[in-house]
Amino acid sequence: MVNIVDRDTTLCISLAARPSNHGVRFHNWLYAELGLNYLYKAVAPADIVAAIAGMRGLNIRGAGVSMPYKGDVIALIDELDPSAERIQSVNTIVNTDGHLKGYNTDYIAVAQLLQSHNVNPNLKVAIKGSGGMANAVVAALDDFGMKGTVVARNHVTGSALASRYGWDFSGEVPTDAKLLVNVTPMGMYGDAEDAQAFTDEQIQAADVIFDVVAYPVETPLMKAAERLGKPTINGGEVVALQAAEQFALYTGIRPTDAQVMAAEEYSQQN
Amino acid sequence: MVNIVDRDTTLCISLAARPSNHGVRFHNWLYAELGLNYLYKAVAPADIVAAIAGMRGLNIRGAGVSMPYKGDVIALIDELDPSAERIQSVNTIVNTDGHLKGYNTDYIAVAQLLQSHNVNPNLKVAIKGSGGMANAVVAALDDFGMKGTVVARNHVTGSALASRYGWDFSGEVPTDAKLLVNVTPMGMYGDAEDAQAFTDEQIQAADVIFDVVAYPVETPLMKAAERLGKPTINGGEVVALQAAEQFALYTGIRPTDAQVMAAEEYSQQN
Repeated sequence: MVNIVDRDTTLCISLAARPSNHGVRFHNWLYAELGLNYLYKAVAPADIVAAIAGMRGLNIRGAGVSMPYKGDVIALIDELDPSAERIQSVNTIVNTDGHLKGYNTDYIAVAQLLQSHNVNPNLKVAIKGSGGMANAVVAALDDFGMKGTVVARNHVTGSALASRYGWDFSGEVPTDAKLLVNVTPMGMYGDAEDAQAFTDEQIQAADVIFDVVAYPVETPLMKAAERLGKPTINGGEVVALQAAEQFALYTGIRPTDAQVMAAEEYSQQN
Repeated sequence: MVNIVDRDTTLCISLAARPSNHGVRFHNWLYAELGLNYLYKAVAPADIVAAIAGMRGLNIRGAGVSMPYKGDVIALIDELDPSAERIQSVNTIVNTDGHLKGYNTDYIAVAQLLQSHNVNPNLKVAIKGSGGMANAVVAALDDFGMKGTVVARNHVTGSALASRYGWDFSGEVPTDAKLLVNVTPMGMYGDAEDAQAFTDEQIQAADVIFDVVAYPVETPLMKAAERLGKPTINGGEVVALQAAEQFALYTGIRPTDAQVMAAEEYSQQN
């Protein structure tokens, strides 16, 4: 990926303990494609307080925020968008003339996908997972009018997540669950890549299957759902939509779906 | 100029109230030429204290410092190289694992040019100018064992500069001056581009003529010195050498003279 850099180039960054190249490739590809004088650089900050000060001092327009900083930055910025306020988790900071506003584009992306896929808000949900992303997903589902059960092996985090939104907690998937959501690493490249997050029987009994895992998009869960003829929402859609939302917040320009898909395809190479 | 950017790219910046594109073009051209995964970005900082904090927090490897921050940053960094200590002026900051050390590569470049041009340290100097760059030049001349006269229209800054190094101050160029140095804007692109900093008679009576003006390199003073057969040191040499020094401090790699000249030529286009 190549970009022109000059004194007028607007700088955006990502802040993560272990930065990936995904955001760098995604954003820089779109900057080049759209002819924007922007540059995106991934940073593993030495000190998050100084990093946020530096965002102000160096006029850095935007920052993607990853683990373990999504909560830490709240005290360091000026305003929270409802998306971040709702879940007390920031994954995107926008700097407008020194005023830093935090967003959560994971929440925004999930909320938009529930709408664009015409999910029926009356479906009972079973969601597997109890981490930060699960929190964003449950909040978006709950704000969409949905209720259901958090299914997690970790009783402490699982029951805390469930009670935060007035949902049920269980170690088992309820048999009447109609929207199944996976927010665990099951199916993700690595040790658990062969794991199918919900059984064929559970999928068969449900109406919609939603997997947040994006690497790969074709998880065992998504493959099983397709095989069983169930409508799906996949992690590639979440990742692309949240990144497009970030991109629009930084640049004021919303890339087309085709551009987002091409940038996403480019980002997943190498 | 194009550069590859990924999560491992080392970021260097410049800090100036009104950034030029020169450093951006010079450094990025050399990074590409030498195959270094570095990127250089000019920044007009919103707040110099936060900017230096950000250098630490965001692991920014180096910063070029321009007006009006060359003195301000001293209190914000951890150590001064003798080049900066001597003149209490920093134009380069190097970040080594969070330890910030300030240098003055203008001082270093002038000191090196006096040596490489085999200037006789016994020559009496007349230097025109009394700003920050004049301070760096007088310090380098003085440390090279030279003495002389500061010639300036501004009595306050001129006499202060002279007395700081035990030099003379005068409104006129002494007739026995053998090294003539221009550190005023005379001959620089703009209102004073036709001004010749020293007269033909003064040049005729001198041994070496040194112009710090780099835009253009061929100032009326340099042209007159060449016409009168006098050896010269020009501003292009100062700019290129200080930038090469900065480059070496950031990357650990010293570009060849040919590479520096090519980068400089590229930088002056557009």
